[in-house]
Amino acid sequence: MEAFFEPRGVAVIGASTTPGKIGHEVLRSIVESSYSGNVYAVNPKAEEILGVRSMPSLDGIDDVDLAVVVLPAGKAFNAVTMACDAGAGAAVIVSGGFSELGGAGEVVQNSIVEKARSCGMRIIGPNCIGIYNPHNGLDTFFQPREVMLRPEPGPVAFMTQSGTYGCTILEGLEEEGVGVSRFVSYGNKADIDEVDFLEYLRSDDTTNVIAAYIEGLERGEEFFEALRTITPTKPFVAVKAGMTEAGATAAKSHTGALAGDYNVFKGVLGQAGGILADDVEDLIDTVKVLSMQPVPEGGRVVMVTNGVGPCVIAADQIYSSRHLEMATLSEGSAASLRMDLPDFMVVDNPVDLTGSATADHFTKALDALYEDDNVDIVVPFFVIQDAPLHSTIDGILDYFKERVPKTTVIVASGGPVTRMVSSALQEVGIPVVPTASRAMTALERAAWYNGWRSRRQND
Amino acid sequence: MEAFFEPRGVAVIGASTTPGKIGHEVLRSIVESSYSGNVYAVNPKAEEILGVRSMPSLDGIDDVDLAVVVLPAGKAFNAVTMACDAGAGAAVIVSGGFSELGGAGEVVQNSIVEKARSCGMRIIGPNCIGIYNPHNGLDTFFQPREVMLRPEPGPVAFMTQSGTYGCTILEGLEEEGVGVSRFVSYGNKADIDEVDFLEYLRSDDTTNVIAAYIEGLERGEEFFEALRTITPTKPFVAVKAGMTEAGATAAKSHTGALAGDYNVFKGVLGQAGGILADDVEDLIDTVKVLSMQPVPEGGRVVMVTNGVGPCVIAADQIYSSRHLEMATLSEGSAASLRMDLPDFMVVDNPVDLTGSATADHFTKALDALYEDDNVDIVVPFFVIQDAPLHSTIDGILDYFKERVPKTTVIVASGGPVTRMVSSALQEVGIPVVPTASRAMTALERAAWYNGWRSRRQND
Repeated sequence: MEAFFEPRGVAVIGASTTPGKIGHEVLRSIVESSYSGNVYAVNPKAEEILGVRSMPSLDGIDDVDLAVVVLPAGKAFNAVTMACDAGAGAAVIVSGGFSELGGAGEVVQNSIVEKARSCGMRIIGPNCIGIYNPHNGLDTFFQPREVMLRPEPGPVAFMTQSGTYGCTILEGLEEEGVGVSRFVSYGNKADIDEVDFLEYLRSDDTTNVIAAYIEGLERGEEFFEALRTITPTKPFVAVKAGMTEAGATAAKSHTGALAGDYNVFKGVLGQAGGILADDVEDLIDTVKVLSMQPVPEGGRVVMVTNGVGPCVIAADQIYSSRHLEMATLSEGSAASLRMDLPDFMVVDNPVDLTGSATADHFTKALDALYEDDNVDIVVPFFVIQDAPLHSTIDGILDYFKERVPKTTVIVASGGPVTRMVSSALQEVGIPVVPTASRAMTALERAAWYNGWRSRRQND
Repeated sequence: MEAFFEPRGVAVIGASTTPGKIGHEVLRSIVESSYSGNVYAVNPKAEEILGVRSMPSLDGIDDVDLAVVVLPAGKAFNAVTMACDAGAGAAVIVSGGFSELGGAGEVVQNSIVEKARSCGMRIIGPNCIGIYNPHNGLDTFFQPREVMLRPEPGPVAFMTQSGTYGCTILEGLEEEGVGVSRFVSYGNKADIDEVDFLEYLRSDDTTNVIAAYIEGLERGEEFFEALRTITPTKPFVAVKAGMTEAGATAAKSHTGALAGDYNVFKGVLGQAGGILADDVEDLIDTVKVLSMQPVPEGGRVVMVTNGVGPCVIAADQIYSSRHLEMATLSEGSAASLRMDLPDFMVVDNPVDLTGSATADHFTKALDALYEDDNVDIVVPFFVIQDAPLHSTIDGILDYFKERVPKTTVIVASGGPVTRMVSSALQEVGIPVVPTASRAMTALERAAWYNGWRSRRQND
């Protein structure tokens, strides 16, 4: 795997001189990255592309660990042979037109894998966007940097069958302030698949949380075996597509994967400590909470707010949840809240500080709630738009800069100002989720994971 | 109602000189709006606030149609009396501390309503953020403009019990490019409630679609009666809170509303042609699709994409839906697609144009799909980040500038560039929804509404 993420040199086989073409943009992504190894282009018709020496072959080059193949399926075998001959240990095949089409495409794909095995080279793809290592900046994307943001380095590894979900989830993570350790889009997984990647991540020190978009698993048993050894220390969150017959058919024409039975997948995943998210937003929210906050030590939630509307939706969801419950304030904290707060504020769960609440009211309430032994999770619902809160918002930021003693997730949504404040809150480590239902879903998953891990530790 | 939305003059009773206080910020919102009527401040201790004449009372003022009360509950009765005496036809009571606290608060609220009735004045609130009329710029919000965006004028009326949801949904609509006709946050609804507002909207020419956040209905029968007369021409989409016991309790302490039984609500709402959204995002997505696009004439969906991953999730959802189905391409359109597109693109549903797709491939495919009699709804899934598409994106924008003959919803998500392109697409009238599942949910609701409306017309 190191040949993929930390290659001495990289060659783009099928580099193009034409901007907008995949063979041009992959090379540009590498050239414009902070990656400091040697970069080569293979294109017999050019002498130089984007400032990189272009050659008809890799003859005489001895530091290419990673070959990125962007040639049509018909020419891919020769490209892989060239990479083998140059001693590359790894190849990313971006191009499509292989097993996902069946027939000849499948035959070509198999011959490529055979060739790679014969020379000890591993393959990611074909039909994928390849890899991204935020720590050295290297990626193999045909999505230009000015069009697609790359996340900062951070604790979340992300593996995906679909390149499209690769793009949208990576940008989603970047926008949500979640840093990434390793990224792989594995497409048709002719060689490397989820199992290889999971096993690699187990001992990857840069990764604390693992996110995955999965269509189908060919090596289900090995996958769950690998997973069971990881989840006690690193939470794993997946979205699974191809739940229904129609979805499974679409998945098959996508990357040739067999989707398998969704319910079986769900059951086995849960037994192995893996979290199943319903969709991409759910995945990002859950990963955000798990990567920024400690796993909650229980499911008792208290809410505190200057606008109680969304707490009603949250209360509905908590009440229907098997893993969360409404915390009952201890007599001590209820009494101290009543003493500290004006009479028109409601001391209950939710603690309703009303639209008049300033940062000072919030921090007094939070102090009491963090002290309360009946509380595992604190959820401040901020209406940042309200003038009394917005005009004192620095008090909130200062408060959260200190260590927060219990799992805390903020709910807030709105326009540019709310987003700016939310970013500032996330920079001090408190995740902000835009809606009550999304926050509660993420917390439900975190609370479930806590329960699973506790049972596992007691086994 | 016109006294609320089109008053000759507005008085803020309880205006404050202190920035950040509610009584200051409400006045500032009015002063800084484009509203052109006279504005007055009532505060015995000031002579002028924010350039507005401040007085101890409204004596001698005769053009105040709307009074906005921002005094504590104990002083609200006198304020309402003052407004009555000045001949105001409408009052918004922003302050809380009334029936939501029970006891004395409830008594005060009742006495205020009695007073207002005696002088023919209508009340919105208390415990609310009041109204917004995008057509003249008037709002009664204590959320400053620099902190909370106001939507442009447009076809969607929005009514909400919760002021917080008022803020977040209004900003959500603004950010999603959905224009608003009328907004009311009615809080404790001491006087005006959902029924009054619905009846007003029936004949309001600026409103084509109605969105609502509802906690409880006191006048359920009248509400559904009013609704039945509106939904044949104006779709109605609601989020309902207080589904469970815990939620209902939270709702009660919020605005004193009784939540009622969720399942009963759901059933009766559906019979009356109303759409029940699961949460705020669902509400905004559905309202966006219904306000920007024609109601689909059936549920047969075709997808076309340069990145098929999210189509797998969509196919799952379509397959599980009672109102959508996967369209089967007609032989004619399948043949013409095969002729027009390169061999490696997959002509099926989804039409997979692959990562190599340019705008030209998309527009050829769209032409065929719009012609296809087996298709009711066209959903392009764009990976705008892919260089071949991004470098030709103007071709897509030009295409959609022409009239689009069938209900069309785009799925695309990503960072700043994707958002910019999405805004441009929405400006030419095509809604863009960030995830496959959210798009399918909105379309499912639109297809259900089409079915309901057809059955109703045939009755």
